Amino acid sequence: MATTEISSSVAPKLAKSLATHPVAPLSSSEIEACRDAIQKLYPPEVKLLFKQITLREPPKAELAPFLDAEARGESTHLIDRKAFIAYYIRNTNKFHEGVYSITQRVFEYHVRLGEHKHGNGDAEEIVDLEKRVLEFPEVKDAIAKLKLPEGTVIICDPWIYGSDGVNDAERLWQCFLYMRDPKNSSFADSNHYALPLPVSPVIRTEDFKLIRIDILPTGTDNFCKPLEAFHVHPPNEYTSEYQQLRTDLKPLNIIQPDGVSFQIRGIGEIGEAVSWQKWTFKVGFNAREGMVLYDVRYNGRPLFYRLSLSDMTIPYADPRHPFHKKQAFDLGDVGAGVMANNLRLGCDCLGSIHYMNGLLSDSFGNPVLMENAICVHEVDAGISWKHTNYRTGRAAVARSRELVLQSIITVANYEYILAFIFNQAGEVDYEVRATGVLSTQPIDEGIEVPWGTVVHPGVLAAHHQHIFSLRVDPMIDGHTNRLVYDEALPMPLSDFNPHGVGYYAQETIVSQSCGLDTDYDKGRVFKIQNVASRNPINGKPAAYKIQAPPFQKIVAGKESFHNKRAEFADHNIYVVKYHDWELYAAGQWTNQSRGGEGVRNWADRKEEIVDSDIVVYVQFGLQHIPRIEDFPVMPAEVMKVSLKPVNFFEKNPALDVPPSEQAFNRSTLAAEMHRQPATNGATVTTNGLGCCETSSKL
Amino acid sequence: MATTEISSSVAPKLAKSLATHPVAPLSSSEIEACRDAIQKLYPPEVKLLFKQITLREPPKAELAPFLDAEARGESTHLIDRKAFIAYYIRNTNKFHEGVYSITQRVFEYHVRLGEHKHGNGDAEEIVDLEKRVLEFPEVKDAIAKLKLPEGTVIICDPWIYGSDGVNDAERLWQCFLYMRDPKNSSFADSNHYALPLPVSPVIRTEDFKLIRIDILPTGTDNFCKPLEAFHVHPPNEYTSEYQQLRTDLKPLNIIQPDGVSFQIRGIGEIGEAVSWQKWTFKVGFNAREGMVLYDVRYNGRPLFYRLSLSDMTIPYADPRHPFHKKQAFDLGDVGAGVMANNLRLGCDCLGSIHYMNGLLSDSFGNPVLMENAICVHEVDAGISWKHTNYRTGRAAVARSRELVLQSIITVANYEYILAFIFNQAGEVDYEVRATGVLSTQPIDEGIEVPWGTVVHPGVLAAHHQHIFSLRVDPMIDGHTNRLVYDEALPMPLSDFNPHGVGYYAQETIVSQSCGLDTDYDKGRVFKIQNVASRNPINGKPAAYKIQAPPFQKIVAGKESFHNKRAEFADHNIYVVKYHDWELYAAGQWTNQSRGGEGVRNWADRKEEIVDSDIVVYVQFGLQHIPRIEDFPVMPAEVMKVSLKPVNFFEKNPALDVPPSEQAFNRSTLAAEMHRQPATNGATVTTNGLGCCETSSKL
Repeated sequence: MATTEISSSVAPKLAKSLATHPVAPLSSSEIEACRDAIQKLYPPEVKLLFKQITLREPPKAELAPFLDAEARGESTHLIDRKAFIAYYIRNTNKFHEGVYSITQRVFEYHVRLGEHKHGNGDAEEIVDLEKRVLEFPEVKDAIAKLKLPEGTVIICDPWIYGSDGVNDAERLWQCFLYMRDPKNSSFADSNHYALPLPVSPVIRTEDFKLIRIDILPTGTDNFCKPLEAFHVHPPNEYTSEYQQLRTDLKPLNIIQPDGVSFQIRGIGEIGEAVSWQKWTFKVGFNAREGMVLYDVRYNGRPLFYRLSLSDMTIPYADPRHPFHKKQAFDLGDVGAGVMANNLRLGCDCLGSIHYMNGLLSDSFGNPVLMENAICVHEVDAGISWKHTNYRTGRAAVARSRELVLQSIITVANYEYILAFIFNQAGEVDYEVRATGVLSTQPIDEGIEVPWGTVVHPGVLAAHHQHIFSLRVDPMIDGHTNRLVYDEALPMPLSDFNPHGVGYYAQETIVSQSCGLDTDYDKGRVFKIQNVASRNPINGKPAAYKIQAPPFQKIVAGKESFHNKRAEFADHNIYVVKYHDWELYAAGQWTNQSRGGEGVRNWADRKEEIVDSDIVVYVQFGLQHIPRIEDFPVMPAEVMKVSLKPVNFFEKNPALDVPPSEQAFNRSTLAAEMHRQPATNGATVTTNGLGCCETSSKL
Repeated sequence: MATTEISSSVAPKLAKSLATHPVAPLSSSEIEACRDAIQKLYPPEVKLLFKQITLREPPKAELAPFLDAEARGESTHLIDRKAFIAYYIRNTNKFHEGVYSITQRVFEYHVRLGEHKHGNGDAEEIVDLEKRVLEFPEVKDAIAKLKLPEGTVIICDPWIYGSDGVNDAERLWQCFLYMRDPKNSSFADSNHYALPLPVSPVIRTEDFKLIRIDILPTGTDNFCKPLEAFHVHPPNEYTSEYQQLRTDLKPLNIIQPDGVSFQIRGIGEIGEAVSWQKWTFKVGFNAREGMVLYDVRYNGRPLFYRLSLSDMTIPYADPRHPFHKKQAFDLGDVGAGVMANNLRLGCDCLGSIHYMNGLLSDSFGNPVLMENAICVHEVDAGISWKHTNYRTGRAAVARSRELVLQSIITVANYEYILAFIFNQAGEVDYEVRATGVLSTQPIDEGIEVPWGTVVHPGVLAAHHQHIFSLRVDPMIDGHTNRLVYDEALPMPLSDFNPHGVGYYAQETIVSQSCGLDTDYDKGRVFKIQNVASRNPINGKPAAYKIQAPPFQKIVAGKESFHNKRAEFADHNIYVVKYHDWELYAAGQWTNQSRGGEGVRNWADRKEEIVDSDIVVYVQFGLQHIPRIEDFPVMPAEVMKVSLKPVNFFEKNPALDVPPSEQAFNRSTLAAEMHRQPATNGATVTTNGLGCCETSSKL
């Protein structure tokens, strides 16, 4: 019985026949319909370059009632399926966007975009650039001046050009060049980032014109030496066959003998509904954000209408041309979905794994299956809660089980491991692990610079920031919420507080859309509240608080393009009034953007937000002063944002987790090796007398 | 072979015959020798009350060379075994301390301590108090006024009295009273914290005199109503038999088929040496600090001479008598070792577990075995590092294995889960999970107060802070270290930085002992450096940085006893010059302390600390504004301090971790249940071609 239950519950294919859910990503046929609808607008000889064909989510006024009816088990009306489409006419700078109703077969709008609107990079474009850039005679001549060993293989990493306002109105790419270890030129996985070259061609994409070749500064100033014979340093490989691997690590396996605790249901060709430990939500996937969660509820109570990573920015510290333009917006410039890894069993997750696929479109408008883009599994997260009555010696202890939805993206040199994590105490975390290879540039030997770290001979890793914006669209017991913050403030000395030890919590209501900062010296904590939903015991509003790690706000000055473009990067929190399709904290089109179209501007509308439909952007990140330990591949730097209930429940919601018991956990003494007790179909005992509950008196 | 290796490696008993190591805790016979030596100073009829008989660690001038010789595999000279002893003459206030050389059979010193020096609480004392307090006729009369139901069982929680300078020179206890659910009086594990009473007797311990009975304020002001009939609210139990337990959680087991990856060696009757994944260290255990780590090295390179939790303080926000004195120093007032839980297999750790015992002394000076006070096990901590070459599709990925040493302490109502965590990237974490039952007090119905939260009808949980001090005694490549901090600062606009995007890292040297704060807006990061040990590649000093979560510093005002006593609680970091036996950030005797003997005062010596033997105290904690979700037992609040290498190694030290491979990890598809591939003696493959390394091209 368990078997059938599980195998069905984790086989979304079984559910494909269901009607497509309004939040399900576009299906293959829907993508093809959009492609054809656009092409029909042009004569067949006009070739198009598609940048995006993605779900246009229904307006909240339509979708919210649908989801509520669905949650109540009521019948739901159909909602038109629509797509957001962006494309170029190939070999031109003519960039268009539009919204097409697949259901009605009509365009809601379709426009050519104006200046400073540039499409994101795409896979075909990048692969094509890498090859063709090296074919320019001028580039070959520049490389020749480096007098590299016979047979040296050059690798090109195209970079989004960035913005500095200097002749950058056209869509350009800045190409950074590297070489493979010349002693090992045929090794396709050689770490070329250990051998950066001082030559950097700039390409205009519409006609693939070589605009110029930048020479990179490699000293302590911004002088660019004429190209000369290049000193080839030794390699620094990261692949396992080049390491003396440890041999003393013993296997650690995670077994779920009765299967997993979650159920999965398909909601379309792509997209799945998950239920686990009182949680229910839907998982979508798109080119820009990758994983998106919709309609997150606990025990049927609404919590979050939509959760996703909105954008990230990685501004670099080196002020010298052309490095001063290095500022990635990896979601807006390329896309977390486009860059999602194909996750492999036993490699990226440990235990009993369920994989979800994504479905995107290529530059020809054809559907592209992204296999295993998300892995879902349970994790033991240590002790959830414990209390020992020292008078009787009875310990009550429950372990914390977590459900992890993980997606990993590769942004050329760098990796981000992105995960939503649910637990049994009503908490949702968003975790980012930053890993991968540092973006490197050449540096002369024997020098140091204060804006970077030498991580290998001849290799500089410039300082940079990683600043993320998590978009939280709440529905705490409904869509009418407010943002407040608590502070802990000392009481004045008085007859009431004669010893000067007293303090109190003060709540401040955020009245208008704005950016806000954390004040650690006041213990400031932001909460999303529903004052119409009062706790039956203490009368306080149902709320979720936001716990985010501290981060240094964007260092680049207010007048800089880095700062203007990264509209979210200057405050811990942005709160705005909800508007349909405002999703991206740095604006819709970040490639060579100028700023002015993101959350900072939405906040400047100064809309009244008390007890209304609000959206909260939570910023966090990393000031990355590289260590040599971060090369050639850095140990993951882990950051976690937590959303936790505050007076939302009536007691610890994890109190009903079965006690942690040996019959269930089947641990062993290390001294006895791992002879597990034979599976006795161990299930949760409900008499509550676990093995922990018999320990002796104090 | 593996079997024997493991079973011996995790059976410290086998090694008991070894000579006792200088950092090994006192043995039973050593404790008895100390007890007898003290008793011999008095006629037999003089009864003594022992508070501490614990290892007096050798001065660093003796121990450091011993450890270095040991690390080099050289023969080591013996070091005298000594004990620190504290005791009262029973039924008096005559409190003594001394240091006794067990080897030489002589006292190094032995003194009676002066006023405001009070011994810590001990188990016998607390159990005795709980019983006898309720036998005072005056206490019975006071309780009678509450007109509680027939057969009501009263529970007494004795609290360390605290300090307010008002008639508190004698050693006192403040007893808070609670009742069991009267409908269930015989249930010994009833959660009495859900039924707090307004009566609080004060006891003088030397002669067990009832000093007074405090009536507790229960309103919005500090008025104490005369005792009247008490309204008995419904109970709020936490034990499993009173919950409707979840039935949909499937087992998750952690199996190490080839055993664990760590080796253990006994270093005395108690105390063990651990080696795991290039790490080596010794584990001690004492009444005050519980777990202590000594001589922590990576690949033989010295890192930390000693690591321990130095103290914690929990000041409460309620300014009203007698709550204004509520400020626990759980290590100094009682002791993390004394309160350590007996950890049970399959309950407090999951997987293949090794347990370590502790050995303490009771109030009669007899040895007391603390069974299973520490559990040691390996954990899979997700992905350590990953890079995918998108050109070839080859992914290089390594999982992070961690070694966890966990101890759990019960402080009457509250629990702390304390853990040292080592990983393969040269990082050490110290993790605290705060759980257990909130300290509660009665409150009238239908009111709110700004210094606490109503968590159950009639029950107030006052706001409080948890502030911890982790003591880090470093030896980064030796004992001559310095403390510095890095900041990321914007470059001024100039011809060199015309676009205003540039920034640089600036290092500041801390020249004198002092307290320091983190500045998040400057990305301030503290590092412990050895400038005599330079990185061979980039020439930077070998260093470890300190990553600690933000916390609100102690709110109680500078003039308050809360603030004066909690000498560590006002700064993120304290750095001082090393002096033997300066271990406790709030001083040796915290019970009813006055301050003036802790780290704030040591720092005020303003000693020069650049390139000397320094000690760093890292503060972190929690501003706890209780949520109703924190009752009756709170979901663990997790805090973690990390010590990470900075230019200490020459590359990512985890690069040599074998690639994450299915043959090793043996995961399964959830849809297929958990049919694990049969054990094929799966070991680390070294050809480096893991299952992850074959995924298809972009």
